[in-house]
Amino acid sequence: MFEFEILERDGRARVAHFVTPHGQVTTPMFMPVGTQGTVKGISPQELLEIGSQMILGNTYHLMLRPGEELVKAHGGLPGFTAYPGPFLTDSGGFQVMSLGHMRKITEEGVIFKNHLDGSRVDLTPERSIQVQEALGADVIMAFDECPPYPAERDYIKASLERTVRWLERCHNVKTRDDQALFAIVQGGVHEDLRLLSLEATLPFQTPGFAIGGLAVGESKEEMYPAVGFTARHLPENKPRYLMGVGHPEDLVAGIALGVDMFDCVYPTRTGRFGYALTDDGRLNLNSSAARSQLQPIDAECDCYACRHYTRAYLAHLLRAEEMLAPRMLSLHNLRYLHRLVERAREAIAGHFFEHWSRQWAERYFKGTPPEWFARALDEGRNL
Amino acid sequence: MFEFEILERDGRARVAHFVTPHGQVTTPMFMPVGTQGTVKGISPQELLEIGSQMILGNTYHLMLRPGEELVKAHGGLPGFTAYPGPFLTDSGGFQVMSLGHMRKITEEGVIFKNHLDGSRVDLTPERSIQVQEALGADVIMAFDECPPYPAERDYIKASLERTVRWLERCHNVKTRDDQALFAIVQGGVHEDLRLLSLEATLPFQTPGFAIGGLAVGESKEEMYPAVGFTARHLPENKPRYLMGVGHPEDLVAGIALGVDMFDCVYPTRTGRFGYALTDDGRLNLNSSAARSQLQPIDAECDCYACRHYTRAYLAHLLRAEEMLAPRMLSLHNLRYLHRLVERAREAIAGHFFEHWSRQWAERYFKGTPPEWFARALDEGRNL
Repeated sequence: MFEFEILERDGRARVAHFVTPHGQVTTPMFMPVGTQGTVKGISPQELLEIGSQMILGNTYHLMLRPGEELVKAHGGLPGFTAYPGPFLTDSGGFQVMSLGHMRKITEEGVIFKNHLDGSRVDLTPERSIQVQEALGADVIMAFDECPPYPAERDYIKASLERTVRWLERCHNVKTRDDQALFAIVQGGVHEDLRLLSLEATLPFQTPGFAIGGLAVGESKEEMYPAVGFTARHLPENKPRYLMGVGHPEDLVAGIALGVDMFDCVYPTRTGRFGYALTDDGRLNLNSSAARSQLQPIDAECDCYACRHYTRAYLAHLLRAEEMLAPRMLSLHNLRYLHRLVERAREAIAGHFFEHWSRQWAERYFKGTPPEWFARALDEGRNL
Repeated sequence: MFEFEILERDGRARVAHFVTPHGQVTTPMFMPVGTQGTVKGISPQELLEIGSQMILGNTYHLMLRPGEELVKAHGGLPGFTAYPGPFLTDSGGFQVMSLGHMRKITEEGVIFKNHLDGSRVDLTPERSIQVQEALGADVIMAFDECPPYPAERDYIKASLERTVRWLERCHNVKTRDDQALFAIVQGGVHEDLRLLSLEATLPFQTPGFAIGGLAVGESKEEMYPAVGFTARHLPENKPRYLMGVGHPEDLVAGIALGVDMFDCVYPTRTGRFGYALTDDGRLNLNSSAARSQLQPIDAECDCYACRHYTRAYLAHLLRAEEMLAPRMLSLHNLRYLHRLVERAREAIAGHFFEHWSRQWAERYFKGTPPEWFARALDEGRNL
């Protein structure tokens, strides 16, 4: 169980199989986010049709509503949500920081006010694992603190050391063998702090590792060296998960640097706002131009929206505030990211990932890609 | 084209085939309402899967936004909406009355203020047909006035006479042979006025007739005698369409009285508000009881929601204001009405419609059905 087998390599990029109790997935992969037990507007059948492999659930949201016991009574997230494949749950830590009010962080854990009803909630490493065991995901995450950006070096250091102590508590309290606990490496954008976190985290030999504490406000110029540095120091034979990322360009750059797993609300959120992801960049269907365009969002896309609808129709649905608009744009955007990682996997398997990613970027960025992106691709070639 | 072949009869209820350019439908049928070019939240593929046969489009909404020319540029409603089957469009008259501001009715037509931008719009019989020809539905409706309830007898009489003159203008201006123009019988709840409308309308020998001017505020005790009276005076060999109706009990009563076609926003609207239609009546998934119920909405239903989800899950989605809730409840409610007419058709074909409808009503009304319902069933037995 939780075997991670690398099938192909091209530079630091790799294609692998990862075995979970609910099925084998192929990485690199993008994981749609099902915050409250549903990928917003999308049915499980549609997720399977567009090539979703693993769905993210949010511990913070689900423990507050409907409560983990109800999910457990359904046999966990697959029974509750009717998505029959693998799930990953986060630890709740990140959302406490971003949504909890009056939060207080101590050695014991975090105390915060429930954003729904104002009640006091305690979240500790032990409680996070207890909730995640009830939710029953295949991959569960260690309870960590993700410091904000910017933060003092001293704070980041103290925080990552506490996160390691929390990892140990998670490790000790975990009871289910059918769940893989992933550790999270912190350290902000500082190489020495990343190294400190790595040295303290790797000995736990968890079945996978996440790169945390990034995409929280720092520039891409600061973020990608930290991604590359961390990924390079993680074990070859374990999956690497870049949390909360990302946009299409982030997936391509992350894959180049050896990342295997990604998740982000971006495709569904930007879809709800009327934007469609394409190889030519992000298309705004709220524009007046879109209202008369009789072509699909993307002629190369095989999603339901692109096979059936014109941009003009989708633009009409948006203006009319019809539910089918966010549904179809979310579906298309998820399919776009799934197709993007599928194409990346093909390029890795064919050993033309660098060529493919440069071609993709030239079209996507309409000319020269930004420095940070070119550097990530360059670094990905150096073994 | 537009052949209406009665296959089975049981009392006044009948099962028939109705041939349209986009395919043959079987009546009695319920038509989902796609007001703005989409049945709210539901894809065309799902409509086909749940047994939808003909979809309603609203002339008033579509002429104002996106405008009928854009729909025409897509090849009409099937190309625009990607629903490949038959459509029916209303004339716009009813919505002008309910949504238009500062409306003024003259012999020529109706002048009103566009509810979207306040601009002045003229809608005449000629313009209604022009728009409906551009929208390209299989069945189009004559431009009529649907008087409010209550209204003076004199007003209803003057209005229905004008509606007949408008019918003549629609009839004269219509150019497409591949669209069936249905006339609308008015007359409120007054038998003599209904007869007046019938006598003036039937000579046009349109391929179908609608019963209009009902379900606008009158009681069911007043409405159903008018339905029965009108249906009984309509030609046997033409489809009869009871506009804007209805609830499950309305479908059963209407079918008993010889109605073939129904439409209503009720299943999708009540679904968006968290209510599910069942043989045991309407289920409120906003209730606290639903939050812990691990059974489906309806164990007998074959819709996606009932095959995959518990009431507790759907109740959670509602509380969390997740888009999947209105989508799934709309889907279930449409499927419920489609299944209801399917069961009615089977009962008619098997000549046990009266027995079936009484049994259905006993469970649905939890005991004795209301007077109006029992009377409608009784009247339906008398040929």
